[in-house]
Amino acid sequence: MPCTKIYENEKVFVFLDINPVNKGHSLVIPKKHYEFLEEIPEDVACEIMKTIKKVSSAVVKVVGAPAFNLGLNDGKEAGQFIPHVHFHIMPRFKNDGLKFDWPSGKYADGEANMLAEKIKKNL
Amino acid sequence: MPCTKIYENEKVFVFLDINPVNKGHSLVIPKKHYEFLEEIPEDVACEIMKTIKKVSSAVVKVVGAPAFNLGLNDGKEAGQFIPHVHFHIMPRFKNDGLKFDWPSGKYADGEANMLAEKIKKNL
Repeated sequence: MPCTKIYENEKVFVFLDINPVNKGHSLVIPKKHYEFLEEIPEDVACEIMKTIKKVSSAVVKVVGAPAFNLGLNDGKEAGQFIPHVHFHIMPRFKNDGLKFDWPSGKYADGEANMLAEKIKKNL
Repeated sequence: MPCTKIYENEKVFVFLDINPVNKGHSLVIPKKHYEFLEEIPEDVACEIMKTIKKVSSAVVKVVGAPAFNLGLNDGKEAGQFIPHVHFHIMPRFKNDGLKFDWPSGKYADGEANMLAEKIKKNL
């Protein structure tokens, strides 16, 4: 795949998204193939986060963005179209028209506690 | 702040979002105060990613979700309303109505390469 590389080390690779939501939109991926975050070994997961931190700082500085969104779509129902884990770094500007308007709900009385207990048992 | 804890260790804390986009929507935060990802030390950044991996696996299992989105809004122009770094884990279901329809653009000839060079110099 032809791409515009920004950074690489032994474990990760970073390149510009060919269809940016804003200029500087970058993708951070593990070099080895993993489809889902769950499959990634801890050392690679750490390296990904360190790389996100490093690259996002440089990207926002260069494009002059005051903010950025980090996003991972894990699974096709979450919008993952390419079966290789990739984290999006998306520079954001005031009034750039990119919106998050996902409606939020509430828990019934006691429901959140019950759910938390179930999650704790599965950690 | 009253909250429903899912997990904590020396460096991070995880709890249910009180206004979930889907049930199980969780927030992973560093225990120490940092407003932006850039400020977080590498060891804490690593611990956050390890925790996201662990908690997201448990959450999707418990709520029966086939997928999830991970999101970080870094800066108010990116939708950050609370000045403490927090990563969203949002379980997703088929046809749950949550949409990402951010329009994407293209780079002019040579523009992506020039931008990548500038970013590399700022890493």
